[in-house]
Amino acid sequence: MAEDKALTSRAADFSAWYNEVVQRTELADYSPVRGCMIIRPYGYGIWELMQRVLDDMFKATGHQNAYFPLFIPLSFIAREAEHVEGFAKEMALVTHTRLIHGPDGNLIPDPSSKLEEPLIVRPTSETIIYDAFAKWVQSYRDLPLLINQWANVVRWEMRTRLFLRTAEFLWQEGHTAHASEADAQEEAARILGIYRTFQDDWLALGVVTGVKSPAEKFPGADRTYALEALMQDNRALQCGTSHMLGQNFARQFALRFQAENGQEEYAWNTSWGVSTRLIGGVIMAHGDDTGLVLPPRVAPIQAVIVPIYRNDEERTLVLEKAAAVAGALRAQGLRIHVDARDTLKPGPKYYEWERKGVPLRIEIGPRDVAAGKLMLVLRLELAGEARKQALPEAAAIESVPALLERYQRGLLSAATARREQHSHRGVSSYQQLREIIEGSGGFVYAGWCGSAECETRVKDDTKATIRVLPSEEFRTPEAPRHCAVCGREAAAEAVWARAY
Amino acid sequence: MAEDKALTSRAADFSAWYNEVVQRTELADYSPVRGCMIIRPYGYGIWELMQRVLDDMFKATGHQNAYFPLFIPLSFIAREAEHVEGFAKEMALVTHTRLIHGPDGNLIPDPSSKLEEPLIVRPTSETIIYDAFAKWVQSYRDLPLLINQWANVVRWEMRTRLFLRTAEFLWQEGHTAHASEADAQEEAARILGIYRTFQDDWLALGVVTGVKSPAEKFPGADRTYALEALMQDNRALQCGTSHMLGQNFARQFALRFQAENGQEEYAWNTSWGVSTRLIGGVIMAHGDDTGLVLPPRVAPIQAVIVPIYRNDEERTLVLEKAAAVAGALRAQGLRIHVDARDTLKPGPKYYEWERKGVPLRIEIGPRDVAAGKLMLVLRLELAGEARKQALPEAAAIESVPALLERYQRGLLSAATARREQHSHRGVSSYQQLREIIEGSGGFVYAGWCGSAECETRVKDDTKATIRVLPSEEFRTPEAPRHCAVCGREAAAEAVWARAY
Repeated sequence: MAEDKALTSRAADFSAWYNEVVQRTELADYSPVRGCMIIRPYGYGIWELMQRVLDDMFKATGHQNAYFPLFIPLSFIAREAEHVEGFAKEMALVTHTRLIHGPDGNLIPDPSSKLEEPLIVRPTSETIIYDAFAKWVQSYRDLPLLINQWANVVRWEMRTRLFLRTAEFLWQEGHTAHASEADAQEEAARILGIYRTFQDDWLALGVVTGVKSPAEKFPGADRTYALEALMQDNRALQCGTSHMLGQNFARQFALRFQAENGQEEYAWNTSWGVSTRLIGGVIMAHGDDTGLVLPPRVAPIQAVIVPIYRNDEERTLVLEKAAAVAGALRAQGLRIHVDARDTLKPGPKYYEWERKGVPLRIEIGPRDVAAGKLMLVLRLELAGEARKQALPEAAAIESVPALLERYQRGLLSAATARREQHSHRGVSSYQQLREIIEGSGGFVYAGWCGSAECETRVKDDTKATIRVLPSEEFRTPEAPRHCAVCGREAAAEAVWARAY
Repeated sequence: MAEDKALTSRAADFSAWYNEVVQRTELADYSPVRGCMIIRPYGYGIWELMQRVLDDMFKATGHQNAYFPLFIPLSFIAREAEHVEGFAKEMALVTHTRLIHGPDGNLIPDPSSKLEEPLIVRPTSETIIYDAFAKWVQSYRDLPLLINQWANVVRWEMRTRLFLRTAEFLWQEGHTAHASEADAQEEAARILGIYRTFQDDWLALGVVTGVKSPAEKFPGADRTYALEALMQDNRALQCGTSHMLGQNFARQFALRFQAENGQEEYAWNTSWGVSTRLIGGVIMAHGDDTGLVLPPRVAPIQAVIVPIYRNDEERTLVLEKAAAVAGALRAQGLRIHVDARDTLKPGPKYYEWERKGVPLRIEIGPRDVAAGKLMLVLRLELAGEARKQALPEAAAIESVPALLERYQRGLLSAATARREQHSHRGVSSYQQLREIIEGSGGFVYAGWCGSAECETRVKDDTKATIRVLPSEEFRTPEAPRHCAVCGREAAAEAVWARAY
């Protein structure tokens, strides 16, 4: 936080604003390896909170964690044709296992250590996991098999951006095997529901759910369900996917079981994941020109206490009170930081914690101590809630959990309202669709005939893609009758947008 | 658990016993990638419990988690001379980033995607982390910087063994920077203390602590502190290390800061880690010929409830009671499993959970329900504790936490007693040292002159190495006066053993 000049505004350059927020609030940093990021403690703290919530949700629904190898044999990834095509262009390949000194004294890969078969640093783990499942599953009694892993994955992307698209990122990937198509389908839907709860109630993103078009689905899946959030620049961010894999991988990896009727059958798989990209989503959904705005449930610091004093005597008095207040708040399960630095005055401290998105600031000065009061200041004024209020100490302490919960819900309401404000429904002509996408952006709800041609045309013309064919509750009450691109009969309503 | 034949006994073949325990209790499995392991849910559950405890201890002492890239540029690793020599022979090297179809249609690395500089899959992260620290640290006010990361690392070992030595393993690596040598030294010692508490009080290993000889220290460190446990085959297992790195890496990565006196100085670093290898240590320290023996504090299931019934009526009655007892135990914070499978009789269930090392079994049959009693059966009889006892239900439920804590302490006492029983002190002749090492094994405490020659000689003759120069409390009261190898004056007491 060496620099204290203002951030670029979102209106002036959203992308520059984003990068400045990420780096100046110490969420993440670029690394010397192209496209890889360093997640700094403040950013990692958000990720840890996200992990804890999701992990609890997965375990509550019967999933167990495990860990599979980082490396995947090339022959494995090659087995599922769509799968390898989807990932072949962005793979980190391990080819040697030793360094030696070359002719000029520099270290080089030892040619004699060349691997017979190159190994792929996992871009995703379907292949190696279903190979293991095939060994573990014999009978229907072994099903369902419900596994999750927290891991790093690598996709050698050409254009990278901190959190949003990096060569290496952290995620969880769930992999399950079921005895029937219906069971697998139910699992894919259950996970979509878990993700939605998490992304709305914890991250306050206000996501739209639905199914991907065939062109946008996961390589190797029968169907991909997804959650899409609208960022403040009116571009979409895919926030998670849940894939119904059918029997595609089971067939390639001989994942068979003896069914209750004695027949040998292929199992049905699902896979699903969310990643550190979600941190980027939180930044772009809620941040403002001051900096980060964090939903309290995933804020590493939910309230910061800033003591105000002019001399040692006041300092002692005020810090003592700050410690007591912090203790009382922590006893309510809150994450509290007391900013006792002597090197900064209160003003710069306020500014720094606002930039870092801390939901609540509590100011304590000598006069507050004397009056038995605390000054509570929210990071943002949300509908119906005063930004600043001075309250008697006990009442203030007691009020904080509910205040933070209202603030949490306020962020979701604001994000959802924003999304609806920039959701254009009933768009029926291609001209209108283009004008919106190329103008203000946002979600365009329009009829789609179901053809890849129309989808490709929109992408080529505008860079917009079908984000999802929305789930029922997100659909426009009056279903579109015609494809907005070709005018033929609509097979479904689609949500088009430019996306990250 | 398809097979139910007995395990190979430890006495017959310790190594075969170990492999069977790991695989048949579903802790881990080999993977199709040479030397890499799959950590199955039961094994990963132990790791998760270990992680939680250590993570809390690190955070309680001011450390924060972060995440650094998987890949390290070759030029980075080459900067610290000892460091690169230590790891050059076992590195996974990424050289290409794309697959294409070769002349015969097979997929091959695309020659046009060859990286200018190969990337190393991290074997450890000192280099890339201290490069980042150098950007983050300006002044003494930014110090100490106390960072930990939970990550996977890769060392391309030739001879691998599940948990103990695998090409990829999971670990935590702490990395810190300090303003003075004394501060760094204090940190290295603090972490050694945390590791010892964890390994004794949670894993019940009964470790010996000390400092490594120069030949055995971490490549790039000034000093390496270590914890060594004695396995049941009387070989040592290094269970963790804490390195005082001095200014070696700081100099290579320009990790400088402005001191309080205004001078530019190099920071002082420490690094430290423990890994999934600890799971192997728990297996080899406590297991018996029946299978695993888990310390309750890291057992994914602390007590299993096995219902006993012969018909549907009894089944309903007994399962209802089992659910109530499980609820009451969970309310005390215990991890409880009810084995309600209808496909197995109680006997095979007992055997399965004993093999899996569950500390306590609770049997509930119709007569127990009628009598208001529960049968508690510990996995092992430990000194002064009855293995089986029938207690009135309420008393039984109330007694379980203390019973498990006594069992936990009993395991530590047993491991410590075993270690001392196989610790040979006052060994003063080389012949005696060789006889012990080549005979029963164990820890040999003997004088050492401090020369690498004597150390090498012992290693060449017996494969034993100096595990540590023990910390004061582990030293033999009467310090050895002569080197057991060459007879010259002893510089220190050393603990020799063959090791994993």
